[in-house]
Amino acid sequence: MRRKITGFSNPLIKRVRSLREKKHRRRENKFIAEGLRILTEAREAGYIPAIVFLEHGQEEHPLAAILCDAIESNGGDIIETSRAIIAKISGKDNAQMLVGVFDDIDVKLSDINRNDADIWMAVQDMRDPGNLGTMMRTCDAVGGGGLFLIDDCTDPFSVEAVRASMGAVFTQKIIKCTWDEFIAWKESGSGQLIGTSLNTDNDYQAVEYQTPAFVLTGNEAQGLPQDYEQYCDILVKMPMKGKADSLNAAISSAVMSYEILNQIRKK
Amino acid sequence: MRRKITGFSNPLIKRVRSLREKKHRRRENKFIAEGLRILTEAREAGYIPAIVFLEHGQEEHPLAAILCDAIESNGGDIIETSRAIIAKISGKDNAQMLVGVFDDIDVKLSDINRNDADIWMAVQDMRDPGNLGTMMRTCDAVGGGGLFLIDDCTDPFSVEAVRASMGAVFTQKIIKCTWDEFIAWKESGSGQLIGTSLNTDNDYQAVEYQTPAFVLTGNEAQGLPQDYEQYCDILVKMPMKGKADSLNAAISSAVMSYEILNQIRKK
Repeated sequence: MRRKITGFSNPLIKRVRSLREKKHRRRENKFIAEGLRILTEAREAGYIPAIVFLEHGQEEHPLAAILCDAIESNGGDIIETSRAIIAKISGKDNAQMLVGVFDDIDVKLSDINRNDADIWMAVQDMRDPGNLGTMMRTCDAVGGGGLFLIDDCTDPFSVEAVRASMGAVFTQKIIKCTWDEFIAWKESGSGQLIGTSLNTDNDYQAVEYQTPAFVLTGNEAQGLPQDYEQYCDILVKMPMKGKADSLNAAISSAVMSYEILNQIRKK
Repeated sequence: MRRKITGFSNPLIKRVRSLREKKHRRRENKFIAEGLRILTEAREAGYIPAIVFLEHGQEEHPLAAILCDAIESNGGDIIETSRAIIAKISGKDNAQMLVGVFDDIDVKLSDINRNDADIWMAVQDMRDPGNLGTMMRTCDAVGGGGLFLIDDCTDPFSVEAVRASMGAVFTQKIIKCTWDEFIAWKESGSGQLIGTSLNTDNDYQAVEYQTPAFVLTGNEAQGLPQDYEQYCDILVKMPMKGKADSLNAAISSAVMSYEILNQIRKK
């Protein structure tokens, strides 16, 4: 259904705006994604928002028109509103002029076929939503299958994570699990769990990786707990030529994943 | 000099807190950096804060004691204060219990010896402070010499950029310049300017890079302006196996820089 909302105090606006907070996302089992580019990625991946908010005139863009048609066919709502209200929902001054409300995407370990992709990422206690979203984007770029969010990770459906993912939150499988669940699942089939560590002499380029490769990255500040390292099939390290002894988590997983992709490309 | 401040309304606290805003950093020609790890990197690189704020008891940590000695020898101020006041300065609830105030670091193009390092980064219109800080950190990791901040980049001395740099803001040369200044300087000596682009068929792994290598990355949303591409000595692209057609700017420059480092390592 198409309708207009002009008032800031409209209860739907308040409710959608509240989805910027995790407790409300939990309660509603919904999340928001912004921007025509990300919403188009979503549509192409088969995810149609239940509601879209757009500024008057936006629906004339060809991709927005296709999106609106898909929402209407699906029985969803298209709400024309003001730029100021969209900025209020998004929490950004230079908000994208299109905000969609999506149902939570719930993927279970048992739903995953590890042979769907050669590369997967696994992150443990990842706390920064920008890092997590960027990792989703990189995992998409290397043709990865998805990300295992192990232990206490930041919410992959937060506004910041979705934004940084540039739509990869819809194309990558996102699986929340505990370490024990992940290890039990991983050991029930093929594949190599690859950890980056300071406690090894294995240069990351000297190893021949096997697929499916699971690239494991620990918490931004602490890295991987040391007793988790023994579960890895291989530990590797990247050359560090400067003063620092570590890379940003999203960078480290990207450099690692591109090495694996490059090895696959050479085969 | 060592002293204590207990009041939130102390004018020095207000002044230092104001350094979180760019206009105040500009006016004072100072910036803040937080945390013992980053302040130790700074000290080892020869940068001693003019003032440090620390929580009572913190000065007993061996590295904090070395830092405090260096500040005192330098005629700087050591200010003992409360955790709440430090959190107020830092703008973070879980603030690092140590905040230093540094004089601006001003590096000019003419100060740079390009042969000091094999790898340099150049960023154009980079807007996100987290991306910029992460790129400093990666540039340090590959043994890079520094970053050229071209055109209208985000402030490298913002709290967010300094934090993301993990101290590399002190170990990397940061040079602000225009595109014309950069190109004139670059062409006055040796080295290869490497752009990543969708407008090329050169696989980034199929090229033999020359040093000093200048890895150029454009704005997060727009990429490099197309008329800038002609100034690059080589354009390359990374494989993109997923739905998206680009990587995060910090990721792209890292994958590129590690490729160059890996080629150097093999020589």
